[in-house]
Amino acid sequence: MTYCVGLMLDEGLVFLSDTRTNAGLDNISRYRKMFSWEVPGERAIVMLTAGNLAITQAVVSLLREAIENPDTAENDSILTAPTMFRVAELVGEAMQSVQHKYHDTLEQRKESSGASIILGGQRAGGAQRLFLIYAAGNFIEATEDTPYLQIGEHKYGKPILDRVITQETPIEEGVKAALLSMDSTLRSNLSVGMPLDLAVLPEGKCRFSEQRRIEAEDAGFKALSEAWSKALRDAFTDMPDEHYPPHD
Amino acid sequence: MTYCVGLMLDEGLVFLSDTRTNAGLDNISRYRKMFSWEVPGERAIVMLTAGNLAITQAVVSLLREAIENPDTAENDSILTAPTMFRVAELVGEAMQSVQHKYHDTLEQRKESSGASIILGGQRAGGAQRLFLIYAAGNFIEATEDTPYLQIGEHKYGKPILDRVITQETPIEEGVKAALLSMDSTLRSNLSVGMPLDLAVLPEGKCRFSEQRRIEAEDAGFKALSEAWSKALRDAFTDMPDEHYPPHD
Repeated sequence: MTYCVGLMLDEGLVFLSDTRTNAGLDNISRYRKMFSWEVPGERAIVMLTAGNLAITQAVVSLLREAIENPDTAENDSILTAPTMFRVAELVGEAMQSVQHKYHDTLEQRKESSGASIILGGQRAGGAQRLFLIYAAGNFIEATEDTPYLQIGEHKYGKPILDRVITQETPIEEGVKAALLSMDSTLRSNLSVGMPLDLAVLPEGKCRFSEQRRIEAEDAGFKALSEAWSKALRDAFTDMPDEHYPPHD
Repeated sequence: MTYCVGLMLDEGLVFLSDTRTNAGLDNISRYRKMFSWEVPGERAIVMLTAGNLAITQAVVSLLREAIENPDTAENDSILTAPTMFRVAELVGEAMQSVQHKYHDTLEQRKESSGASIILGGQRAGGAQRLFLIYAAGNFIEATEDTPYLQIGEHKYGKPILDRVITQETPIEEGVKAALLSMDSTLRSNLSVGMPLDLAVLPEGKCRFSEQRRIEAEDAGFKALSEAWSKALRDAFTDMPDEHYPPHD
């Protein structure tokens, strides 16, 4: 399983992913699910992937081949496409092409070809955009009403985001909320696991301010997780008794 | 969809369920999912149901028919069975009988016969017990390691339970935690809806101390929900900055 989340805040984009994959409970490995490209000052792009690993790796490979192939038209490479919308189309087209190739044989074997990708980024002169690309290659976009997108095991980590994230949330608070959302998911689902990959892309810069791997023994993440547990337990204990539903 | 939760605490059992059912998004109704029986001082039993409504209603009807039928052997009615374990077996047998009748025709129509039941209660002289009965009629029991059971849309409301519920949690705190767990679920999944049904069964009493419906406009529940939202946001805001993962 997987949990990935992308936030689109006024101050910038925040991306967080776990690294655990499993083919059955007895076959667990670690794979990077965050892929990024940066032409500092010109464009910065992040992809987070969930679902069938062979499918999402093939999508990333197709996009990389197009970047590396000198014959690729400007409009057909995510590093030269004129808009983030076109980048999203290219990711969707790569997804369709991979699905076209493997969907039927996977279906025959009753295996899932399900896959989804969060794509976010900005190019100089354009707005920052955040998309969710489905297995059919179609996609939706984050808006001010829904300034975050999740893929994979999204439910455990949604309540905290729903309560604290708005478009106006400062970017450091966004990072904190994404980490706490991941923390809730890690606690409840064993198939989501450390280490984590974090990327932060401030609005208008087209340059990552942070791209790092957070290891299982990371003291900062542990402290954040413990402080949050304590804060929640304290808030729960301090909840005034008169807030119980009164008796009839 | 549905969300139901049962807690087994040293001080007693707590049960909470929503009342929303849907057959597609455009066919939403309200059905009671909590069923209770009380012979004050001798035994008290609660069932919470999730899944195919026709299946769970049929299970409840079979159990009621057995209670009402004067020819039912003592061992075959949930109101006269000698142990809560036997009560769980009776619920499991009713489930098997209903599944046997409808499973194949539901499968033909590609409809789900999935259903699950939380069963809890106590009889005089016995311990309080809490079970989760599956569609196959088999069941598991809550233990000190896992003092709560959930059915239906369980993920959104699990983090709060994981953080605050232990067997030693006082019963009023248990009620508060169950309500907050439901509150998180209501916020995140439209197919779980008010009103709620709450039942509290103190240990050793075999008599409910509380059985009530909490309506959408219930001032106490609203206040609890708002106080919790505020406490969470405050805890989040107050989280010290040094708890961020430090930069490399």
